[in-house]
Amino acid sequence: MAAQEVSNKQVIFKNYVVGSPKESDMELTTSKITLKVPEDCNGILLKNLYLSCDPYMRIRMTKHDRPTYVQSFIPGTPIMGYGVSKVLDSRHPNFKVGDFVWGMTGWEEYSLISSPQLFFKIEHTDVPLSYYTGILGMPGMTAYAGFYEIGSPKKGDCVYVSAASGAVGQLVGQLAKLTGCYVVGSAGSKEKVELLKSRFRFDEAFNYKEEADLDAALKRYFPEGIDIYFENVGGKMLDAVLINMKLHGRIPVCGMISQYNLQQPEGVHNLVNLIIKRIRMEGFIVADYYHLYPKYLELILPHIKEGKVSYVEDVAEGIENAPSALIGIYSGRNVGKQLVVVARD
Amino acid sequence: MAAQEVSNKQVIFKNYVVGSPKESDMELTTSKITLKVPEDCNGILLKNLYLSCDPYMRIRMTKHDRPTYVQSFIPGTPIMGYGVSKVLDSRHPNFKVGDFVWGMTGWEEYSLISSPQLFFKIEHTDVPLSYYTGILGMPGMTAYAGFYEIGSPKKGDCVYVSAASGAVGQLVGQLAKLTGCYVVGSAGSKEKVELLKSRFRFDEAFNYKEEADLDAALKRYFPEGIDIYFENVGGKMLDAVLINMKLHGRIPVCGMISQYNLQQPEGVHNLVNLIIKRIRMEGFIVADYYHLYPKYLELILPHIKEGKVSYVEDVAEGIENAPSALIGIYSGRNVGKQLVVVARD
Repeated sequence: MAAQEVSNKQVIFKNYVVGSPKESDMELTTSKITLKVPEDCNGILLKNLYLSCDPYMRIRMTKHDRPTYVQSFIPGTPIMGYGVSKVLDSRHPNFKVGDFVWGMTGWEEYSLISSPQLFFKIEHTDVPLSYYTGILGMPGMTAYAGFYEIGSPKKGDCVYVSAASGAVGQLVGQLAKLTGCYVVGSAGSKEKVELLKSRFRFDEAFNYKEEADLDAALKRYFPEGIDIYFENVGGKMLDAVLINMKLHGRIPVCGMISQYNLQQPEGVHNLVNLIIKRIRMEGFIVADYYHLYPKYLELILPHIKEGKVSYVEDVAEGIENAPSALIGIYSGRNVGKQLVVVARD
Repeated sequence: MAAQEVSNKQVIFKNYVVGSPKESDMELTTSKITLKVPEDCNGILLKNLYLSCDPYMRIRMTKHDRPTYVQSFIPGTPIMGYGVSKVLDSRHPNFKVGDFVWGMTGWEEYSLISSPQLFFKIEHTDVPLSYYTGILGMPGMTAYAGFYEIGSPKKGDCVYVSAASGAVGQLVGQLAKLTGCYVVGSAGSKEKVELLKSRFRFDEAFNYKEEADLDAALKRYFPEGIDIYFENVGGKMLDAVLINMKLHGRIPVCGMISQYNLQQPEGVHNLVNLIIKRIRMEGFIVADYYHLYPKYLELILPHIKEGKVSYVEDVAEGIENAPSALIGIYSGRNVGKQLVVVARD
């Protein structure tokens, strides 16, 4: 039987970005693709279902003078990102037709993946498949590794999470509650703050945009100081946190989204508190922790199924809306984990 | 026999300091003291021999709005600091007349210490007693704890030390060499740079004042990047280091002397490298590590006696010269560990 050739909508990265990314930095085109893995290739052919919009993707839009932990996108080719996909054809022994997988795919309807070794096969399909872009995928592992492996939490610890309603933050708060911590989150709208308290059971939450004095806000919620700050934003928030940390506090550094669009990052002035409070501040990358993924699933799947852990998604329908969805996360427009539905099966 | 009353020269802290400290922030006075511990006191009466000038003392000259790890000096009373002293009288079971001790004493010829529990008795007197203000005292323990406990060095690691000819830095470099590391130090004069290479056996050394581009300087000495940065200075140097760290690098944060005299500390802009390079940056205070002091002495005493470790002191003669000596360390005037001789026995 001849291989089927179909049209393939794609989101193309037009050129390197300086400052805030715009929709016009991407372009929707349609090409053709044959739904068959070529004979000389050890890969898989995917139908992409859900695409993930993640803050780190901004770093891939910059042309870097020196190597960084992720490679820049290549102008003229599709945006790449985590996604959930269905295997339509396979020449790789680990994957067979009909498998659902998650991993780094293209922003297009169909992708040929020539090196699928880093894809995870989805074994549990009795939960929403889209969750593998979030709580059951990279952001979930990020929250888990950062909180437990770097944060070293103990029952009773006072935990602060910035960007707390995002893909990672909402889970960090709930892991902290499961560990018996007191947890406060901040976000950028009334709606998000409500979500933190009502859905994710944070003890307290506040809108950082309404706080003229972040130091005073943190003092209000942490009169005794902060044991763990799960850092997602950087800049002024980090400065305010540093003066409110407790002795021997820990700061897992997951992201600094407030800084990604700046050409010159803001200065952080209060680092001397690292000494005064004997603080450990440690950056991490989820890719270093994927060996813990089975252990993480064992922990989190029952909590999801029993409704003990909630997960809120912000869903954009259709690949045409992917550029707008991605841009939106840098201004905080999304409520919860931002993803794009390309197809549902 | 009636207790002997003698005159007691003192260096009095006049008032809280803003900006750079000046000699006139201190005042030399003479009072009287009885060389006897009062009957209702469990203390010791000391003759002070060597006084230590240490960077952290600047922090004690500031009036703090909130508690910090050291208390502010009290205006109108003597400066306090580490020193080496001889016990002239004791009502404390751990100390007897004639003992040599080191610990937190007054900047004066004689001090009555009412709570001497934190003093260390000097058991080894076959090395210069003044060393207990430096390599065998607080700065030595600081280098040891910071380098080994926080830095987690391995043979072959590339180590960078700022303020490298100072009381702590010169020892960190030598510990790094003993561990089989490649070590580069920076200091602020040609003389100090020579010392780093000739006396302390750093592999390379440079004068940071002659480098217009610190990033380029670090690239020259660390083309492959830095595994351990022993942080003594903060500010611009830290920013340049952050972009030159290797993956999984460690930054023990010992001090930030470049920032202590500033009313608004400089901003550090490159913290996103903590994520990119998965860097652990950790502040520490030597007081948390004094339980390791016997272990440290066991390591370092043989090295000193065999001449495998050098220690350079900058010695000011006479308590009258103590204010000038202390002020000098903030402009880097000292070459090596700055101390003041009050008396030699």
